Amino acid sequence: MSRIDLQSALERIRPVSSERLAEIQSRIDRQAKPQGSLGRLEEFARRYVAITGREDVRRKAVFTFAGDHGVVEEGVSAFPREVTPQMVLNFLDGGAAINALARSVGAEVVVVDMGVDYDFSPMEGLLLKKVAKGTANFARGPAMTRRQAIQALETGIEIAFDCKEKGIDLVGTGDMGIGNTTPSTAIAAAFTGLSVARLTHRGTGIGDAALARKIVVIEEGLKLNAPDPADPVDVLAKVGGFEIGGIAGLVLGCAACGIPVVVDGFISTAGALIASELHPGVRDYIFAAHQSVEIGHGAMLERIGQRPILNLDMRLGEGTGGALAMGLIEASLRALREIRTFDDAGVSGQEAP
Amino acid sequence: MSRIDLQSALERIRPVSSERLAEIQSRIDRQAKPQGSLGRLEEFARRYVAITGREDVRRKAVFTFAGDHGVVEEGVSAFPREVTPQMVLNFLDGGAAINALARSVGAEVVVVDMGVDYDFSPMEGLLLKKVAKGTANFARGPAMTRRQAIQALETGIEIAFDCKEKGIDLVGTGDMGIGNTTPSTAIAAAFTGLSVARLTHRGTGIGDAALARKIVVIEEGLKLNAPDPADPVDVLAKVGGFEIGGIAGLVLGCAACGIPVVVDGFISTAGALIASELHPGVRDYIFAAHQSVEIGHGAMLERIGQRPILNLDMRLGEGTGGALAMGLIEASLRALREIRTFDDAGVSGQEAP
Repeated sequence: MSRIDLQSALERIRPVSSERLAEIQSRIDRQAKPQGSLGRLEEFARRYVAITGREDVRRKAVFTFAGDHGVVEEGVSAFPREVTPQMVLNFLDGGAAINALARSVGAEVVVVDMGVDYDFSPMEGLLLKKVAKGTANFARGPAMTRRQAIQALETGIEIAFDCKEKGIDLVGTGDMGIGNTTPSTAIAAAFTGLSVARLTHRGTGIGDAALARKIVVIEEGLKLNAPDPADPVDVLAKVGGFEIGGIAGLVLGCAACGIPVVVDGFISTAGALIASELHPGVRDYIFAAHQSVEIGHGAMLERIGQRPILNLDMRLGEGTGGALAMGLIEASLRALREIRTFDDAGVSGQEAP
Repeated sequence: MSRIDLQSALERIRPVSSERLAEIQSRIDRQAKPQGSLGRLEEFARRYVAITGREDVRRKAVFTFAGDHGVVEEGVSAFPREVTPQMVLNFLDGGAAINALARSVGAEVVVVDMGVDYDFSPMEGLLLKKVAKGTANFARGPAMTRRQAIQALETGIEIAFDCKEKGIDLVGTGDMGIGNTTPSTAIAAAFTGLSVARLTHRGTGIGDAALARKIVVIEEGLKLNAPDPADPVDVLAKVGGFEIGGIAGLVLGCAACGIPVVVDGFISTAGALIASELHPGVRDYIFAAHQSVEIGHGAMLERIGQRPILNLDMRLGEGTGGALAMGLIEASLRALREIRTFDDAGVSGQEAP
């Protein structure tokens, strides 16, 4: 993998051409169907083609970034910390939800160890990119150093550029990390300015008492660390996570090298939000996969300016919503390629209204 | 095809077993993920398996029912009447949106001529089931006779039973018929009692003047024909369409022989509504594919008690939304089959809340 630093990646980001978008739409408008009648499928096809210059997807891959969180010691999750490495091994073994759903759309799954508190042996499908064995507890001080935050971002950027070389035309983000709705909620609060109580939800399924505790932990962590929303690297360092930094870097890297990136649910959107705060041009490259059950998700999507593709009451992460959305994006390309025009199909056009 | 009459089909409809649904859910609950975290995918898998007793889909097919409408002479559509047969030929040639989207999920497309004003030669993929060459103009009198309405319903029922014999495990409905949002809106108004103005939309894209005219035509047609909502066959006969009757029959037949049926958008839902008014047990077998842009769609879905799977601003018909939804239902079955349990995956379970 070639090293691209954060600054160079940011400098490479270009807006997607509005002329190109209009050209593709005018081609769609000649297809034998009422104009605009395929709704958002037309948007997906238009954006994908404008970004990539291609009308098909050669390879697609979901990157599931994993990391542990010091803040778990505050009792913010329904699952014990050892589940993070256990699930990583389950992903590598092909037995998790992301594996099943990625197979259903023909996507590869790559697991990226960004900071799991466990020593993995080198394995097929696993990228060993550990920054540290879990973040520090942000209820007591910063989750990571600024240098670690940049390292996490640059790891994601590197993966994006590697995808470009390998002909991976569509990238999905995913996450695994017990406790990671807590830093994601803190990130949402830091950027949106909304109250923590309004953004905090039950994650993998905590009860009322743990939810109240989670709100207090996030509030106090934000107060203690005072992350600067004008400096997204600072937000990541103070209250983020290594897997969230990896996701942010991947999203940013995809924008820098021209790959459409399907952003999964709550945690992935926290990563994408950091990327889009680092450079608003990133937004043109994002496809928001789905609306998560987590209540803070909508506020982040709004800030990124993306409307989710699916709303299936999911709240699993791993990249599962992203895999499903990839299938719909690919279907939109098939519609673009295969629907005949009015002329070719011998179909009469619309009458004057 | 074996003939099953309307009455026998209605008598065969059984509720889907709630014990079976609970059994499947408890199996899903042992999979290594937070309980309920796959949201509606769990519902799709649970319902599909409870209906069919299978965990996979051997064959799936979209039936696109076509018919012409006498009411088109009132100027209610943006497209001329000859587009109905032109699009049927486009479907048979594989060049329409439904062909592209059905291919994207591996579904067959079968076109059913229920009442197109054109003589088709026998062709692969076309069922010749013409009731008549278009309905009569319901602004002047009933759209069809009661006998014709029953014939249309029984055609759809027959197709469902034929699917059962052929091992088609998942059926999608679709429609083609210039002017058919007009009868569908009349059906919606007849059953929901809501005002025509509140239910009428632009179909394939009419302007304001034509929209105002469409509302008047529907209002007057309902007044003139006075369809009896307690007698769904009467509603179909007075203000319906042959393709809508075929769809209603297919939905009813699927319920009678135990096939999950994915109901496409506005016109298909009008058919499904007739079926569910004939027998409320039909509802257990319906998967509502998507939320159409047509404003009357939501009221019909509400009456059927189904929440749409997708909301992609589509308004094309043909079965296009249904094809996309089929892909998600199939993904849900893969998740059911392939996600390991906590025990098998060696993953620790949820802690006490």
